Amino acid sequence: MSERGDPADPLLRGDDTDDETILEQAETGLDEDDRLKPEFLSSVLDAVEDGDSETARDLVSPLHPADIADLLELTPSDRRADVASALGDLVGAEVLSELNDYVRDDLIGALAPEQVAEFAAELDTDDAVAMIEDMEEADQQAVLDALDPEDRAAIESALSYPEESAGRLMQRDLVAVPAHMTVGQVIDYLRDNADLTQDFWEIYIVDAAHRPIGYCQLSWILTCPRGIAMTDLMKREQTLIPVDMDQEEVALRFQKYALISAAVVDSAGRLVGMITVDDVVHIIAEEAGEDILRLSGAGEGDINQPILMTVRTRLVWLVVNLGTAMVAASVVGLFEDTIEHLAMLAALMGIVSGMGGNAGTQTLAVMVRAIATNQVTSSNTLRMIVREFRIAATNGSVLGVLIGIGSYLIYGQLGLSLVFATAILINNMVAGLAGVLIPVTLDRRNIDPAVSSAVFVTMMTDSLGFLTFLGLATLFLT
Amino acid sequence: MSERGDPADPLLRGDDTDDETILEQAETGLDEDDRLKPEFLSSVLDAVEDGDSETARDLVSPLHPADIADLLELTPSDRRADVASALGDLVGAEVLSELNDYVRDDLIGALAPEQVAEFAAELDTDDAVAMIEDMEEADQQAVLDALDPEDRAAIESALSYPEESAGRLMQRDLVAVPAHMTVGQVIDYLRDNADLTQDFWEIYIVDAAHRPIGYCQLSWILTCPRGIAMTDLMKREQTLIPVDMDQEEVALRFQKYALISAAVVDSAGRLVGMITVDDVVHIIAEEAGEDILRLSGAGEGDINQPILMTVRTRLVWLVVNLGTAMVAASVVGLFEDTIEHLAMLAALMGIVSGMGGNAGTQTLAVMVRAIATNQVTSSNTLRMIVREFRIAATNGSVLGVLIGIGSYLIYGQLGLSLVFATAILINNMVAGLAGVLIPVTLDRRNIDPAVSSAVFVTMMTDSLGFLTFLGLATLFLT
Repeated sequence: MSERGDPADPLLRGDDTDDETILEQAETGLDEDDRLKPEFLSSVLDAVEDGDSETARDLVSPLHPADIADLLELTPSDRRADVASALGDLVGAEVLSELNDYVRDDLIGALAPEQVAEFAAELDTDDAVAMIEDMEEADQQAVLDALDPEDRAAIESALSYPEESAGRLMQRDLVAVPAHMTVGQVIDYLRDNADLTQDFWEIYIVDAAHRPIGYCQLSWILTCPRGIAMTDLMKREQTLIPVDMDQEEVALRFQKYALISAAVVDSAGRLVGMITVDDVVHIIAEEAGEDILRLSGAGEGDINQPILMTVRTRLVWLVVNLGTAMVAASVVGLFEDTIEHLAMLAALMGIVSGMGGNAGTQTLAVMVRAIATNQVTSSNTLRMIVREFRIAATNGSVLGVLIGIGSYLIYGQLGLSLVFATAILINNMVAGLAGVLIPVTLDRRNIDPAVSSAVFVTMMTDSLGFLTFLGLATLFLT
Repeated sequence: MSERGDPADPLLRGDDTDDETILEQAETGLDEDDRLKPEFLSSVLDAVEDGDSETARDLVSPLHPADIADLLELTPSDRRADVASALGDLVGAEVLSELNDYVRDDLIGALAPEQVAEFAAELDTDDAVAMIEDMEEADQQAVLDALDPEDRAAIESALSYPEESAGRLMQRDLVAVPAHMTVGQVIDYLRDNADLTQDFWEIYIVDAAHRPIGYCQLSWILTCPRGIAMTDLMKREQTLIPVDMDQEEVALRFQKYALISAAVVDSAGRLVGMITVDDVVHIIAEEAGEDILRLSGAGEGDINQPILMTVRTRLVWLVVNLGTAMVAASVVGLFEDTIEHLAMLAALMGIVSGMGGNAGTQTLAVMVRAIATNQVTSSNTLRMIVREFRIAATNGSVLGVLIGIGSYLIYGQLGLSLVFATAILINNMVAGLAGVLIPVTLDRRNIDPAVSSAVFVTMMTDSLGFLTFLGLATLFLT
C-alpha cells in the first residue's frame, strides 16, 4: 500500500489528467484484464537485448509498481536480472514487495545486503519482513546489520513472531491518541507531526497503559466539530487482533466483519501494531484459492516455483495415490475368475468407480470450502450429512436408472443391468457419505481436510465400487 | 460496512471497555475461529422454543450483525422464521445484508413489501440492491413502490446495470469536491453537511463535468494545513472503475493495486459512484474459492442452496462424466479378447488411468488458478507448456520405474512390467500436456476453464491410459 501513501510518489501510472484516464491502460501496455500485453513485453525485452535501456525505461516508467512486478514475472527467468538492471531504480522497493516470492528471492540473491537494506528501509514493516523473511540466516543478518537501528528493531521484533502470524503482517506505524483529546486537538497533533505515517484509515484511542479503548474512522473526525471529545466520537466495540493469531484467521476476521483496519494487541492487551485490509486481501485470495491446489495434491501451485521443488511436491502425492490405486487393483484381482468369464465387466467396472469418484469429489469440494470458511460447526454437521446423503441417494437413483436402461438396450441382459444399476446407486451413496464424513473427521483431528481427504475418498469409491459391482456380478451372473 | 458507519450504532458486540476486550468472543458465544459455539446456539434455540424471547434477545444482543446472520444460517431451516421473529428488531437490515442469499430470500419471502422497503432504506445502495435483486419481479416492484422516491431512484438506477457489474456493487453516497477548494474549505464543507455518508475513506476531486481528476486519502487531508489547495494534495493517478466492469475484474483490480476505495465512472468519464474494498472482499474470496467447486462440478457449492437445485446442478455434471466414462469403457471393450486371456490386466489398467488422472488434475488445478489470477498471457504460455511437460516427464519416469520394479517383484514377468512402466510414463505425459493445453485453449475461446477442463482431461487420461496399456499388452504379451 505504500505506493498510495505519499502524495508526491514518483511512481506514476499514466500521468494524464484529461478525460481519457479510463483508457490509460490501453496506452500503458495493459489489456482489459490488467494483464501486460505480449507486444508490450516484447518491446521491453527487445530494447533490453539491444542495450537500449533508455527505451526500456521510457516504456516501463508509466507502469504501476504492481505491473512492473508482473513484467518481471512474465520475463523468462534467465533474462530477469538483465531486465531488472536495465530498469534501474524503476525496480524499487515497492516493485520488490509486489513480486512473487520465488522471483523476488532470485533477484534479491544478486543484490548486496546494503542494497536490500535500502529497499527494506523504504517499506512498511510488514512488506520489509515479507521481503527478507525467506532469506538464509547469514544473508538476513547482513541485511539487518546494514539497517539503521530503528528499522532494524522494528523488523527484528516482527521476525520474533511466528511465520504467518498477525505479528508479521502488522505495521508499527499507526496513530494512537490518549482519551482526553478532542477532535481539534487530534487534528492539530496530526498536522504538527510530519513524520507520522501517511497510511492510516482509523485512529486508535488508548488508555494510560496503551491499551486500545476505542477507534475512530477518519471520516467521523472530519465531519465533526473541533470541540467534540474523542471518547464521545469513538466506537468502543472493536475487533482486536491478537498478535499471535494465524494470518488465515486474521483474513477471515477482516472478511467477516468487513474491516478496513484493525488494532493488533499483545497478550496484555496493549496496542502493538495495526493491520490494514490491503495487507490481508492477498491472503484472503490465496487461502480461498489454495484448497483446489491442496485437494489435487499440487502443493502451493506457484508457477514460479523451481521445477524440482514442484516435481517433489507432486510426486509425493502421486506415490500416495499409487498406494490407493493398488488397493483398488487388488480388489479387482479378487475377481479375476469372474472377469475371465465375463470380460465385458472389465470395461464396465470403471464406470462404477468413476461415477462414484466424481460424486465424491463434488461433495468433498463443497465440504472443504464450507469448512475453510468456518461454515461448519457441530451445530450443523448432522444436517450436512443428511443433506449430502439425500443428494447422493437421489443422484445415484437417477444415474442407476439411466445406466440400467442404457445397458439393457445395449447388452439386453437384465441381470447385468440390475447389477450395474445397483452398484452405481450404492457407490454414489458411499461417495456422498465419504465425501462428508472424511473431511469432517479430519478437521476435528486438526488435519487439513483439503490436503488429505481426496486420497481416502477415492480409495473408498474405487475399492467399494469394484467390490460392489464385481461382487454382485459374481453372485448373480456367474 | 454500514455497521461501522454510525458511531452511535446500537448493535454492540460486547460493550466492555476494560482490558478483557480480546476475550469478548468467549463471552459472546464465539469460538476461537469466530464461529458460534454449538452450546450458545442451543441456548438460543431452546429459549425460542420455550417462548422466552427475552432470554433469546439477551443472549443475541451482544453479537455483531455478521454473527447474528451466522446464527440464523446455523438454525435448522424449519425454525428460522420463529427465531427471526423472536429476535425482532435484532434482525435488522444489516443482518439481512450479511445473510446467505438463500437464507435471506427465505426470510424476506415472509415479510410484507413495506417491511423489506424499510430495511432497504437503511442500507447502502449496494447492500439494498443485493437484498432485492433476486426477488421475483412483482415482489421487487412492490418493495420499490414502498420506498421513498430518492431511495427508489438510486436502487432502480443500480438495477439498470447488468448483474455482477460494478454498477450493482457501487454506492452512490460519496464525497466529491470541486478543484478550487482548499483543505480548510473541504473540512468546513464536511462539517456543515450532516447528511453526507459517514463511510468514506477518500475524497474525489472533480472537474466541471463531474469527471474525477484526482483523489485524496483522508489521512492526507488531516495531516495538512488548511491553506493547501486540494489540487496540490491530490494524487492524479487514479485507478478508475468503468461502471459496466464485471465484478470479478473489479475484485482483481482492487487486489492488484491494493485499493481501499475507487471511483466508478460512466462511459463519458463522469463520477457515478464509489466502490469500497469491504464490498469486494467477499467477491475476492468467492471468486478464488469457486474454482474448486466448478472444477469438481459442484456448481456454486452453497450449503444453503435448496436440495433439488443442488441435485440438478451436480447431476448434469455426473451425466456429462458418464459420457466420458463410456468412451473409456468402449476403449476397454476393444480389448476384451486380451483381457479374457490375461485377466490381471483388468486389475492393473485402473492404475494406469488413475495415475494419469491424478497427474492431470494437479496440472489442471495449477493452470486454472494461474488463469483465474491473470498470471497466464501469450507471453508465457509456451513456457508453461514446457514446464508442465518437464514435470510430467520426470514424474512419469519415476513412477514408471517404481511401478515397473514393483510389478516385476510381484508377478516376475519382465514383459508385463515393461509394458506397465511404459504405459505409466506415456499417460503421465498425456496428462501433463492435456492439463495445460485444454484449459489454455478453452480460456482463449472464452470458455471458463474451471467449468469444462476436467471432463476433457479425464477423458484423455482414461481413454489413452487404457489404450496405451491394453494396446501394448496386446502387441507384446499375447
